[in-house]
Amino acid sequence: MTKKQLKLGAFLSVPGNHLAGWRHPDAVAETDMDFGWYMRLAQMAEKHLYDTIFFQDTVAVAGSDALKAGDMTRTRLSRIVKLEPTACLAAMAVGTSHIGLVATATTTFNEPYNIARRFSTIDHISNGRCGWNLVTSQIEDEAANFNLDTHVDHAARYERAIEFYEVVAGLWDSWEADAFLRDKDSGVWFDVDKMHFLDHHGKHFHVRGPLNVSRTPQGRPVVAQAGSSEPGRELAARTADVVFTAQTELEAAREFFADVKGRTAKYGRTLDDIKIMPGITPVIGRTMEEAQEKYDQLQALLPDDVALAALARFTRGIDIFSYPLHGPMPDLPEANSAKSRQKLIMDMAKKNNMTLLQVARSVSAAQGHRVLVGTPEYIADELQEWLEKDAADGFNVICNYYPKPFEDFSTLVIPELQRRGIFRTAYEGRTLRENLGLRVPENRYTAARRAQAAD
Amino acid sequence: MTKKQLKLGAFLSVPGNHLAGWRHPDAVAETDMDFGWYMRLAQMAEKHLYDTIFFQDTVAVAGSDALKAGDMTRTRLSRIVKLEPTACLAAMAVGTSHIGLVATATTTFNEPYNIARRFSTIDHISNGRCGWNLVTSQIEDEAANFNLDTHVDHAARYERAIEFYEVVAGLWDSWEADAFLRDKDSGVWFDVDKMHFLDHHGKHFHVRGPLNVSRTPQGRPVVAQAGSSEPGRELAARTADVVFTAQTELEAAREFFADVKGRTAKYGRTLDDIKIMPGITPVIGRTMEEAQEKYDQLQALLPDDVALAALARFTRGIDIFSYPLHGPMPDLPEANSAKSRQKLIMDMAKKNNMTLLQVARSVSAAQGHRVLVGTPEYIADELQEWLEKDAADGFNVICNYYPKPFEDFSTLVIPELQRRGIFRTAYEGRTLRENLGLRVPENRYTAARRAQAAD
Repeated sequence: MTKKQLKLGAFLSVPGNHLAGWRHPDAVAETDMDFGWYMRLAQMAEKHLYDTIFFQDTVAVAGSDALKAGDMTRTRLSRIVKLEPTACLAAMAVGTSHIGLVATATTTFNEPYNIARRFSTIDHISNGRCGWNLVTSQIEDEAANFNLDTHVDHAARYERAIEFYEVVAGLWDSWEADAFLRDKDSGVWFDVDKMHFLDHHGKHFHVRGPLNVSRTPQGRPVVAQAGSSEPGRELAARTADVVFTAQTELEAAREFFADVKGRTAKYGRTLDDIKIMPGITPVIGRTMEEAQEKYDQLQALLPDDVALAALARFTRGIDIFSYPLHGPMPDLPEANSAKSRQKLIMDMAKKNNMTLLQVARSVSAAQGHRVLVGTPEYIADELQEWLEKDAADGFNVICNYYPKPFEDFSTLVIPELQRRGIFRTAYEGRTLRENLGLRVPENRYTAARRAQAAD
Repeated sequence: MTKKQLKLGAFLSVPGNHLAGWRHPDAVAETDMDFGWYMRLAQMAEKHLYDTIFFQDTVAVAGSDALKAGDMTRTRLSRIVKLEPTACLAAMAVGTSHIGLVATATTTFNEPYNIARRFSTIDHISNGRCGWNLVTSQIEDEAANFNLDTHVDHAARYERAIEFYEVVAGLWDSWEADAFLRDKDSGVWFDVDKMHFLDHHGKHFHVRGPLNVSRTPQGRPVVAQAGSSEPGRELAARTADVVFTAQTELEAAREFFADVKGRTAKYGRTLDDIKIMPGITPVIGRTMEEAQEKYDQLQALLPDDVALAALARFTRGIDIFSYPLHGPMPDLPEANSAKSRQKLIMDMAKKNNMTLLQVARSVSAAQGHRVLVGTPEYIADELQEWLEKDAADGFNVICNYYPKPFEDFSTLVIPELQRRGIFRTAYEGRTLRENLGLRVPENRYTAARRAQAAD
C-alpha cells in the first residue's frame, strides 16, 4: 500500500522570517527587492519538487504607525518592502514549469472582478498552476492606505470576504470550457449559450459579469485560506482547497485538522477536498547540538528592543513597552486582527510560563510558527508523525533567511522524506490540482446541463 | 546632424484590431487567450527594436449589455476575452531584456495604492522597463462589474483620475533611492530620514503611505495617457510621459501635437518631456494595388451587421440600427464616454460625406485609427512626413490580425525607416526612459534636500 504523501510549500518570506535572520553572515539581505532571487528560489523549489511557492502579503509598511509615532526601533525590522506577489507569480510562471504559484490577495481592499481576472490570467499564463490565498487584511496600517481612519471590524471583514469569494467563484464560471468556437467560416466567435452573466446583487457587491477571461486550464485557480479564528475556519471549510495555519503543538494541530475537515461536509465537500498545511521553520544541523548552536547564533543577532517591537504588532490595546521584560506576559484585550495568532501566542506563553521577553524573542524568531531545531532525521520524524497522526497534510517551509536554510531543507530533509516514501520523487502532473490531488471543479452551468441531459 | 528619431510601439490588439481580421486564412485566432503568443509577439517586437509593447484594457466584456439584451450579432465580435495586462507585463519581463512594457489600468475602478505598487513591482522585475497607461474607464459595461448601475460621469472620472495620479506619483516617492542600508553590523535596515509618509487627504482618497516597494530602477514607471478630450489633454500635459492618440488627418494631428505640448509649460515641463504617438494600422503590399486588394479581402470578411454592432459601441443614446444603412451618418447626442473617439468618427463622416454603413465598416476596420494601405516605401513616407511636420514623435503599430501583418511591418517597413536614418538600429539603453529619451525624475525629497544643501 502506498503511504500517505505529504505536501510541501516553499513560503518565500524574504529577506527572512527570523527578524534578525538577514544579519547572519550567510544571508543575502537584498532578497526582498531583487526579483532575480525570487526566481532562483522558485526554480530551486521546483528542482526539489515542492508543491507550491507561497507569498504572504500586506498592503502597507507593517509598523508604519509606530514609525510615524517616532519609534526608531522599527528601522531595525527587516520586512518593510517587497515585491507585489501577483506580479511575481506571473513572472515566475515563465521561469518554471511544474511548481504551483500561490499568492495572497486581500478581500478587504480589492474588488472581486479585478481579483478573479488577475488570478485567472495567471492560471492561463502558468498552464494551470495558480492559487489565490484569500485573506482579510490583518493590520491597522493597511486601512490608512485605503481611505479609512480605523481598521474594518473583524466580523465585517469576514462577511465581506465570504461574499467576495462567492463573486469570484461565480465569475470563474462565466464561460464554459468549450465556449469559444473561433469559427472562421461562419464568423461566429463564441457560443452565447456557454456565456453566463453572474448578476450578483449582495450586501457588499453588485457584479454583473461575465468575466473577460475564459475558463482556465485547471478549471479555476486553487483557493487557499489562512485564517484560523472561528469565522476563518468556517470560511476555509466552505471555500478553501488548501489551508495554511500556524500550529506549534501536536494535539492542537490535530484538533484544528479534525475541526476544519469536519466542517466541510455541510458544504457538500469531502475531507480530501481540503489540504491542511501548518508552517514550520527548520534549523538544521549535522547533530542536535550543532542545530541548537545555529539557533542560538540567530537569536544572538536579535536585540531585545527589536524583539519587543515585533511582538508589539500583536499586542494592540496595551503598551507592551511599559511592562517588565522579565515579568510574566501580560493579558491582552480582545483583538480586531490576527485574532488566532494572538491566541496562539498567549497559549504558548501560559503553557510554558514564559516571560515577556521570552515571548517577544520567540515571536521574532518564527512569527508564531513551529520551529524545528535538529538533524534532518529528527525533522523528518516530526513531519512524519504529524502526517501520520492526522495533524497535517503537509507543511509550508518558512526560512529564517535566504538562501542557505532553504538549501539545507531541500537537500537534507527532502531526500530523507523521500527515503521514507512520504514525499514524491517526481511531479504527479502538470497542474497544481494534479500535484495536490484535488479534483478539477466542474463549471456550474456545464454540470447543470449534464444533469438535465441525464434526466 | 542626426535626424529626429521616431518611436515605435507594438500595440498588442489580439486576436486583431480589425473585427474580422481573425477570419483571415493567415490569422491565428487563438492569440487572445494563449500567453505563448503574447510572449512570441513581445520577443519579435524586441528583435525589431520597438520601444514598447502596449496593452489596452477594459474591465468588462465589451458589448455585454447588448448581449444581455439579446443581440446575437455580438457573438461575432472577436475581442471578448483576453489576458489581464499587468500579469502579462510581469511575465513578459522575464522573456525580454530591452523592450518597454506598458499596460493600461483604469483609475475608475482601482485603488491608487494597489496600482502604485503593482507597476512599481513590474518596474523592478523588468529592471526599469515598465509603463502605466492611465485611463478613465470608457464603457458602461465596466460600471456594472463594480457595484454601479450607470457609468461614472465624464467630468467626475477625470477629477478622480487627476487625484489618483497625484497619489500614485506621491507613493512612488515614498523611499529615496538610497533609503535601504541593510547594515548587518549595526542591525539598521533602513534610514528613516529617507522614508516619507504621503499623508494625502483629498476629495476621493485618503492615503497615508509609505508604499511598501522601494524606488525603482528608472526612478519610477513611465506614465502614458490616452484621452484626447479637453480634460484628457490637460491631464496628459500634466502627467504623461507618452500620449497615445487616434489621429487620421495630418492637420488635426499637428494641432493635437502642438496643443498638448503647449500645455506642458505651466506644469514646469518641457516639450521633450512628452512623446506623442498616434496609432496606425498598416496593410502592406509589394505594390499599392496588392495592398488595396489585401484591405478589400479583409473588408469582405466583415458582415454589415457586425460592422454596425461595432459602431454601436460608440453611439449610445440613439438606436443606430433604426437608421437607413445607406443614408447619412446620424448626429449623436453628447457622450459620457470615449468622447474624443466619437468626435473623430463624426468629423470623418462629415468630411468625407460617408453613409452610416461606410462609417460602420471604417470603425470596424480600425477603431478610429489611421489605416495606411500601401507599399513599405509609401508607409515610411507617411510616417516620416508626420514625424518631420511635428504631427507625431512616433507611432503605435496596430495590427488587423496576428502574426503576419506584424511580421510584415517589422521586416518591411522598419528596415526602410532605418535606411532613412529615422529609426534606431540598436537600443540606446536598458531602461524604457533611456530608450524613449526621457529624464529620470528625481525623488521630490531628494531634490528638496539637494536644494537645501546648495543654499
